[in-house]
Amino acid sequence: MKKLVGAAILGQSGGPTSVINASAAGVFLEALNHPEITRVYGARHGIRGILNEEFYDINLEDKKELGLLKTTPSSEIGSVRYKMKPLEQDDSEYQRLLEVFKKYNIRYFFYNGGNDSMDTCNKVSKFFKDSGYECRCIGVPKTIDNDLCVTDHCPGYASAAKYVATTLMELTKDANVYDTPMITVVEVMGRNAGWLTAASYLAAYKGAGPDLIYLPEETFDMNVFFQEVEQVLAKRNGKCLICISEGVKDKDGKYIPEIFQELEKDSFGHSQLGGSATILANELKKKFGTKVRGIEFSLMQRSAQHLASKVDVNEAFNAGKQAVKAALSGKTDYMVGFAREYDANGKYKCNYVLIPLEQVANGEKKVPLEWIKPDHSGLTAEYVNYALPLIQGDCKAPLEDGLPRFAKLKKILVDKL
Amino acid sequence: MKKLVGAAILGQSGGPTSVINASAAGVFLEALNHPEITRVYGARHGIRGILNEEFYDINLEDKKELGLLKTTPSSEIGSVRYKMKPLEQDDSEYQRLLEVFKKYNIRYFFYNGGNDSMDTCNKVSKFFKDSGYECRCIGVPKTIDNDLCVTDHCPGYASAAKYVATTLMELTKDANVYDTPMITVVEVMGRNAGWLTAASYLAAYKGAGPDLIYLPEETFDMNVFFQEVEQVLAKRNGKCLICISEGVKDKDGKYIPEIFQELEKDSFGHSQLGGSATILANELKKKFGTKVRGIEFSLMQRSAQHLASKVDVNEAFNAGKQAVKAALSGKTDYMVGFAREYDANGKYKCNYVLIPLEQVANGEKKVPLEWIKPDHSGLTAEYVNYALPLIQGDCKAPLEDGLPRFAKLKKILVDKL
Repeated sequence: MKKLVGAAILGQSGGPTSVINASAAGVFLEALNHPEITRVYGARHGIRGILNEEFYDINLEDKKELGLLKTTPSSEIGSVRYKMKPLEQDDSEYQRLLEVFKKYNIRYFFYNGGNDSMDTCNKVSKFFKDSGYECRCIGVPKTIDNDLCVTDHCPGYASAAKYVATTLMELTKDANVYDTPMITVVEVMGRNAGWLTAASYLAAYKGAGPDLIYLPEETFDMNVFFQEVEQVLAKRNGKCLICISEGVKDKDGKYIPEIFQELEKDSFGHSQLGGSATILANELKKKFGTKVRGIEFSLMQRSAQHLASKVDVNEAFNAGKQAVKAALSGKTDYMVGFAREYDANGKYKCNYVLIPLEQVANGEKKVPLEWIKPDHSGLTAEYVNYALPLIQGDCKAPLEDGLPRFAKLKKILVDKL
Repeated sequence: MKKLVGAAILGQSGGPTSVINASAAGVFLEALNHPEITRVYGARHGIRGILNEEFYDINLEDKKELGLLKTTPSSEIGSVRYKMKPLEQDDSEYQRLLEVFKKYNIRYFFYNGGNDSMDTCNKVSKFFKDSGYECRCIGVPKTIDNDLCVTDHCPGYASAAKYVATTLMELTKDANVYDTPMITVVEVMGRNAGWLTAASYLAAYKGAGPDLIYLPEETFDMNVFFQEVEQVLAKRNGKCLICISEGVKDKDGKYIPEIFQELEKDSFGHSQLGGSATILANELKKKFGTKVRGIEFSLMQRSAQHLASKVDVNEAFNAGKQAVKAALSGKTDYMVGFAREYDANGKYKCNYVLIPLEQVANGEKKVPLEWIKPDHSGLTAEYVNYALPLIQGDCKAPLEDGLPRFAKLKKILVDKL
């Protein structure tokens, strides 16, 4: 196979996770090792940084600091929520990308994100191919939602799941500290897939978790909800801990906050969610007259690096490395995916595989309905067996003054040509 | 000194912390070691458990599980928010306590809580003395608010502070992930004292923290607030991260939510707070038209055992042990307090001291005004020097299946006599 000589660029897109920097570390450290990659760039705020010719020069960074990216939450080079115009409608942004790639002789394009980002990567890849520009495009998965197709799971999910399960175990202890009635509603991220909310069941599985769990895979019915809460209150002396996905919808397809307020739309056309916990807590207070508390895990669930799963950090890092290796071996238009294997002792092992981008782009993998207990008391053993291997081990930033020491990059922008 | 032979009881009161069980472990494990303590009880839900003759028999517990209490958040025996009627108005509850103590020959009373609880402990102690009933009463401090007088600091504070600082470092990374304008308002607990909100400055001190910090020690002025936010937005490209105490009040003594809603009162006559972050975020959105997010640390800040400070856990545990030792040595009507010392190498050391309960009861220690920077950009070096030694080291529960293994007590109630 012919060696392709040129620069490499990594862009990150969508909501960050605790381990998206770990994938960046994997891409950067691997790319810096190969002479055919003449320069390594980090796009400032994803595709927009490429359109604007704003790249950080990763060759100028200290390798120790790049290593610390493994345990630094969010995205140091910056992410973006930006949907390129459909190619058939307007190719100007694609032409601009091609121009920039040619100008800097960028021959390796790594795009790290969720299903929208895999779609972008796929389109860019096809456009380059049709234009006769040789560039190897590899997607690196990322999403706390765990909703990418084909791959067994996604980097970022396990650490967020570990946050949700651990925090719910702690909150369950707190919610039982008094002998007085109390309903607690906890809201977890997840627009259409309930994987992250499902992780709350791991707390219940360990003996200290929510009584009721609602995923967006099932239609949310307020009357059923009230009945189920009432049953728990009767059994548990007026106490009930509920975990609900921000994405649950009623039979008319309406999110809980939609009943109460006009929703804004983000630039991908998704609704901006949040607030369900408070709204439901207030409704429960009216109904049962008991003390209530609504809790949102908000941005903490995707940035709590201090609770990152070691398995997740290592897999995210390796996904970055594997992307570079795949590109160097001549592959293009794939996403690095994970395939699960168990060894003879039943020990979990992750195999890195290549999945055609078009199989991943814009698809959504949901929690199987048969894994959801119909009485909303939780998930089946299948889910527990699926999730537990992923949340093993800790991998947090080293402490300095008792607080995390995150990576400190120089972030020197490349001079525009 | 005459040996006092009889049972010991521990009660816990007020809001829990990550380390209140560590103090319980200290009391229980120390008390079980001394033959003059004939039985060790844990009052179910504090003073109310004593009034109802509901005690757990700690002698029946596994010592390994009692040891695991050190790393189990909240209160396993249960806490209570219960204010006894003033003695001079109605002594019936005090008489009832005396009756119960006599019936079970309880001669050692340990009460673990904040300033309200130290007041209760003090009153009970005085009533027993006046009634000629020999019982040694020792308070064990506890409060994430860090507002007890005389003692240098309080068990529970450092772990909550470590949660606040660590989480704000992570949120700061998240809040800067996009290049679009965004105001984030984070609300931290603290009714009258801003110690916990002050901990958010430790994140800024480490290079990733809030731009503006508002403590309840200073009068909150909405106009000044808007001006200061505007200045940050101008400097930081439309971004601003604000940390605010739930207890900030305007010049009329009104909390932020009071301007918008009727407040309920809890049984100590304090207002039930919360919601300031969302309210301020909405006001800022109206004012600056930018994207906003309100985040409440809610119950997580007091129950995040996985981020507990090792210094705090050990001090909380030792406070419990010291309380038992003090009582056995004949002391009564004291609270165990902490005095800070630095060795010749400047290394922090905690000395355990006894403080008369009446010096602590109902008093409140606030953040010195001279430690607060007038432009609300944070705290002075005095605060950093005060706080950093307290948040050192990690001490979290052992992992089982990747999740915390908390103490599992049998919790066998003593048969009523």
